[in-house]
Amino acid sequence: MTDPLDPLFAPAGVAVIGASDDPSRIGGRPLRYLREGGYRGAVFAVNPRRETVQGARAWASVSDLPSVPDAAILALPAAATPGALEACADKGVGAAVVFSAGFAETGAEGAALQARLAAIAREAGMRLLGPNCLGVFNPAIGWYGTFSVVLDGGALFRPGPVGIVSQSGAYGAHIAHLARGRGLGIGAWITTGNEADVDVAEALAWMAGREDLSVIMAYAEGVKDRDAFLAALETARARGKAVVFMKTGASAVGADAAASHTASLAGSDAVFDAALRQHGAWRAASTAEQIDIAVACAAGRYPEGRRLGIFTMSGGFGIQLADHAEAEGLDVAPMPEAAQREMLDLLPFAAPRNPVDATAQAANDLGLMEAGLRLMATRGGYDMTAAILGAGPAAPSFAEPLRRTLAAALAEAPDALRGLTMTAPEDVVRAYEAAGFLVYEDGAQLARAFAALAAFGEGFGRAAEAAPPPMAPAALPEGPLSEAAAKRILGAAGIPFPPETLVSTPAEAAAEAARIGGPAALKICSPDIAHKTEIGGVALDLPNPEAVERAAARILAAAAEKAPDARVEGLLIAPMAPRGVECIIGAAQDPALGPVVMFGLGGVFVEVLKDVAFRTAPFGPAEARRMIEEIRGFPLLQGARGGAPADIDALARALSALSRFAHANRDRVASVELNPVRALPEGRGIAALDALIQLSPRPAAARTAPAPAPAPAEETAP
Amino acid sequence: MTDPLDPLFAPAGVAVIGASDDPSRIGGRPLRYLREGGYRGAVFAVNPRRETVQGARAWASVSDLPSVPDAAILALPAAATPGALEACADKGVGAAVVFSAGFAETGAEGAALQARLAAIAREAGMRLLGPNCLGVFNPAIGWYGTFSVVLDGGALFRPGPVGIVSQSGAYGAHIAHLARGRGLGIGAWITTGNEADVDVAEALAWMAGREDLSVIMAYAEGVKDRDAFLAALETARARGKAVVFMKTGASAVGADAAASHTASLAGSDAVFDAALRQHGAWRAASTAEQIDIAVACAAGRYPEGRRLGIFTMSGGFGIQLADHAEAEGLDVAPMPEAAQREMLDLLPFAAPRNPVDATAQAANDLGLMEAGLRLMATRGGYDMTAAILGAGPAAPSFAEPLRRTLAAALAEAPDALRGLTMTAPEDVVRAYEAAGFLVYEDGAQLARAFAALAAFGEGFGRAAEAAPPPMAPAALPEGPLSEAAAKRILGAAGIPFPPETLVSTPAEAAAEAARIGGPAALKICSPDIAHKTEIGGVALDLPNPEAVERAAARILAAAAEKAPDARVEGLLIAPMAPRGVECIIGAAQDPALGPVVMFGLGGVFVEVLKDVAFRTAPFGPAEARRMIEEIRGFPLLQGARGGAPADIDALARALSALSRFAHANRDRVASVELNPVRALPEGRGIAALDALIQLSPRPAAARTAPAPAPAPAEETAP
Repeated sequence: MTDPLDPLFAPAGVAVIGASDDPSRIGGRPLRYLREGGYRGAVFAVNPRRETVQGARAWASVSDLPSVPDAAILALPAAATPGALEACADKGVGAAVVFSAGFAETGAEGAALQARLAAIAREAGMRLLGPNCLGVFNPAIGWYGTFSVVLDGGALFRPGPVGIVSQSGAYGAHIAHLARGRGLGIGAWITTGNEADVDVAEALAWMAGREDLSVIMAYAEGVKDRDAFLAALETARARGKAVVFMKTGASAVGADAAASHTASLAGSDAVFDAALRQHGAWRAASTAEQIDIAVACAAGRYPEGRRLGIFTMSGGFGIQLADHAEAEGLDVAPMPEAAQREMLDLLPFAAPRNPVDATAQAANDLGLMEAGLRLMATRGGYDMTAAILGAGPAAPSFAEPLRRTLAAALAEAPDALRGLTMTAPEDVVRAYEAAGFLVYEDGAQLARAFAALAAFGEGFGRAAEAAPPPMAPAALPEGPLSEAAAKRILGAAGIPFPPETLVSTPAEAAAEAARIGGPAALKICSPDIAHKTEIGGVALDLPNPEAVERAAARILAAAAEKAPDARVEGLLIAPMAPRGVECIIGAAQDPALGPVVMFGLGGVFVEVLKDVAFRTAPFGPAEARRMIEEIRGFPLLQGARGGAPADIDALARALSALSRFAHANRDRVASVELNPVRALPEGRGIAALDALIQLSPRPAAARTAPAPAPAPAEETAP
Repeated sequence: MTDPLDPLFAPAGVAVIGASDDPSRIGGRPLRYLREGGYRGAVFAVNPRRETVQGARAWASVSDLPSVPDAAILALPAAATPGALEACADKGVGAAVVFSAGFAETGAEGAALQARLAAIAREAGMRLLGPNCLGVFNPAIGWYGTFSVVLDGGALFRPGPVGIVSQSGAYGAHIAHLARGRGLGIGAWITTGNEADVDVAEALAWMAGREDLSVIMAYAEGVKDRDAFLAALETARARGKAVVFMKTGASAVGADAAASHTASLAGSDAVFDAALRQHGAWRAASTAEQIDIAVACAAGRYPEGRRLGIFTMSGGFGIQLADHAEAEGLDVAPMPEAAQREMLDLLPFAAPRNPVDATAQAANDLGLMEAGLRLMATRGGYDMTAAILGAGPAAPSFAEPLRRTLAAALAEAPDALRGLTMTAPEDVVRAYEAAGFLVYEDGAQLARAFAALAAFGEGFGRAAEAAPPPMAPAALPEGPLSEAAAKRILGAAGIPFPPETLVSTPAEAAAEAARIGGPAALKICSPDIAHKTEIGGVALDLPNPEAVERAAARILAAAAEKAPDARVEGLLIAPMAPRGVECIIGAAQDPALGPVVMFGLGGVFVEVLKDVAFRTAPFGPAEARRMIEEIRGFPLLQGARGGAPADIDALARALSALSRFAHANRDRVASVELNPVRALPEGRGIAALDALIQLSPRPAAARTAPAPAPAPAEETAP
């Protein structure tokens, strides 16, 4: 055994504690499934009240067993579980699966009982799955450590490349059922329930490390260990495994229910969404989509680009699929001119561009269809090819010739992914799939599947992107930080700030203004005044030293009146900043995903349109650039509305720097906000005009406090 | 017969011209289908080369027939079709169905041939379906005027409440096939092909008028007659019929292919999308969704509101469905407190809010499930109730008791719509459907279906909204219009403009400025200068008469230099307008949908974010208000970012007025743009600061010219 979870996923022997003679009961099902599955390891039924259980010898206690099983299944009431778990620990069992409910999900008392289980396991070095879980299975070795009814009636699973990991037992069973119905083989299945020990992240990491798995379907309502979770996603990406994720709690209602349903705190859905994309996983919009994408990925082939060629025998369907493909970000590029001419030589009535509409002529003459499709596949330069078959393959006499035609047509373009939309009985669909086609009934499904494959391909390609170098934690004081202090600290971390001067008196301010020589901005500087504008602590566009002097006196008086207890460090004076595109850059500690960075344009973009992008920290400038490109207002940075293109590279460097800072100081820094940040024209950098660092009250609380919402852009000065 | 299309949809007798003895050929299939369908009208096989066809007497010509058939099916090559059609016309046939291709879709020659068919039919008062179509059928009377293979193997259709109208024959056959597979009965089916005469709009109107149809599935790539099309949608809405629409050509690629595929010009997809919503139809995002929604509507019940109660036995599924429901705009409102307490009395482990998670306890005790679900349905105050069953009903022993339990639980809330998510064999699903449940496999489908039902319910409720009174066409000159002229004309149509004065000289301008007494705005006024800012024709914030005089001289000189040939009417002078939220209001002639009105916020909202709403003209203020509420930036009008709430009623009145103007003058006015329009604080109205009317070059071209894109907000003056 090379992984601590191996006893859970591939035990050499197992004890079923609370074994029932009734094969339909929770304590009886595992014995039955292990027998039906042909499990070859030792199976010990533990039941002190019986001689035999389901025809096999019953043992009174784990301590009596003649050998040490790798795994134990505990099918006992909650109250009886700690004692039995202790017996397992004493015996040296490697991993225990606890089915029963009545733990942390029921309240404080249950949580205490659950903590006891965790402590027993931890002290013994034994791994614990659950409690309140549906267990684990591994069809390749007939290991069924579950009581799920999904195995009823001898409906075992075929081994295969798909791993399933789910916090919810019901959801895990449901998608296993659906995957089986779609012909997918399952290589490993686990439900983590209350996650007293083993969690989704660790199970995901185990699956990502398996040679025989290539797709992982995951379900989670939240994550407990962000570092382990993100590392597992990165392992999967580095090894070219597709993680297809269902994350619930997107709605406000959903988030409420999630909080009451699991012990985990769910983070902001937008952050989770971004994190999955950033780390190469695909977030499914529905369970049906999760299955669809898993089917696509199980074939194990990913396109190198997004160019899609569409072949149809009815124009309307071609247009429809083109609509779906464009909506999914695929490139329905025209065929090269020469190939279009050849297509017209072959099929004079065809629309030869893309979609290629070969008309009913091709449907009535398979030779023409073969030639046309071959031409498109070999000469179109596409990464993916889709043919629209409708109900054609449903006709028994037509199914087989059509399949051979398609296979022959595409044999000369073996690298291109090929997809079909068609309606046919299941056995026909399976035959087409076995011939190397992705088959969906609806064009929307096929387009989504191709888009997911393209996204995975791109993500796998980015796996080699170097992680940014870690940053040393900053020397942070205990109390709140003034703007000047925040800028010093963030400046040292690589965020560029325009030069400014801290002065103490109106006279000093006037002297500095004279040195500046042009319009100046003046702001109160105090660790105790976070919102300077509100107390009249800001003056902009001051034309000359006299105006600066008057404003300085006014600001100091206002501060003394409105914030009499604030420690005033002085006044910050700077030349008025050059014009640019106003942005907001922020960092916060997400309750689920830890240090995250936000980017958006200022004003209505953040406040009204919520047009922001998130990333988990740390990340490099390439990821930062993708983050910037993600916002809807991105054209403004490219120079829309007659402006100059902004210095996007400088923005990306600042975002990456802030991400490293937020990660390095995650235990101390609750949030950072740079607002506004002016993105200057290309090559001229950025100017962060204000900075606010909020420290966590206590280091230990930093990672569980609710994430502060991005502050509105109150500070627009100077 | 009371409708001109009755001979097409319900002929008392039919002639098949080009009748084939081979029942698998295009000319043979209709005879076979009519026989298999039990059609009771007279069927005449016309084939001059045979004595009998498929065992029935063959007639040499239509002219020989002993009686006049209501309908004739023409299964002939394109070249032979006009002659046969003339014979039908001479005989007095009511409607002809032309299957063959080779007409307008192939180019100019085919278009001429098609025009000949149309002329023959028109002159005879005979209706013509096609050419290049798959025909029509009506299962209730066994009338199958089609050669579609969807009827192969004796697979006839069950009569039912669903009508299908499709421009594409292949698409129409495909959704008929899918609908049949989902257990839907078909009341009428028609494919319109090249639409030489009968088009989607008229077929839609016929179906909307049928008592026995309650759902219409439609497919179109464009529309030929906008008034007929919109009227058909309104008839359907007024009669409570759900129109579920698939419109292709959404992508740029799709639009290209559509233009080459059909004779119709496809309009902007966003306009079509808005028009469907405005007129009460549902636009399906995919074919699968179109079927899903048709299934939901076939039950014929629509909720009164959007409140959805979710009942689950596994929390994760409940959260997931809540996510889907919120995303679809449904209201997953909590149960009343008292009902929550009762739920906890019943099910102490339940999460009682909404989703109600009854836990596995309820799954194991159907009595508890029944009581819990009844409580939710009767006490929750919901318009819709959803229960999540997973694969439960797939277990043969469980399917029937579970169905009875659900029916009993919901019997006391007969008015609430009830939906289920479940996976089960088809016969089980049908049994649940027969018991009054909407059944979907995926929660995303159920949420979408409920949302569609809610939208239909709301749309039907708006059917009685009074249409705005028609407006008399304006007296419009032949040449281009200056800003002052445009404002006069639009002002008479009910658009409010702030007072301004047309002056001729700098001295007159100065005198007017003195009268105004505050800062003034000054603009060149000429029908030949559409973009005033570009030539230096605008000056703002002029503080006093002297500044006005200097600016007036400068503007006149600039106009004389930059636009020497422009006819200058003078200078417009006005006080600077009060502050407000900047909007753009425009009208244009959409190539497919005629006069349409656009609304958006100014600046980045229109230019970068394309955040605009469309409506077909004319419409009343209530519809205008919905239009305004649709844009993403709407919170800005409500007073986001500390502004005062804007006068949305005044905006709505102006939009409605412009819609009436654009409709009344559709033959002369190519576009109108009011930019900027300042929406002032509530109760203070709006100020349209600039107006541009572009006339159509010739009246006849007005409705087929490409719609001008909304102009960028170049004019921000005064």
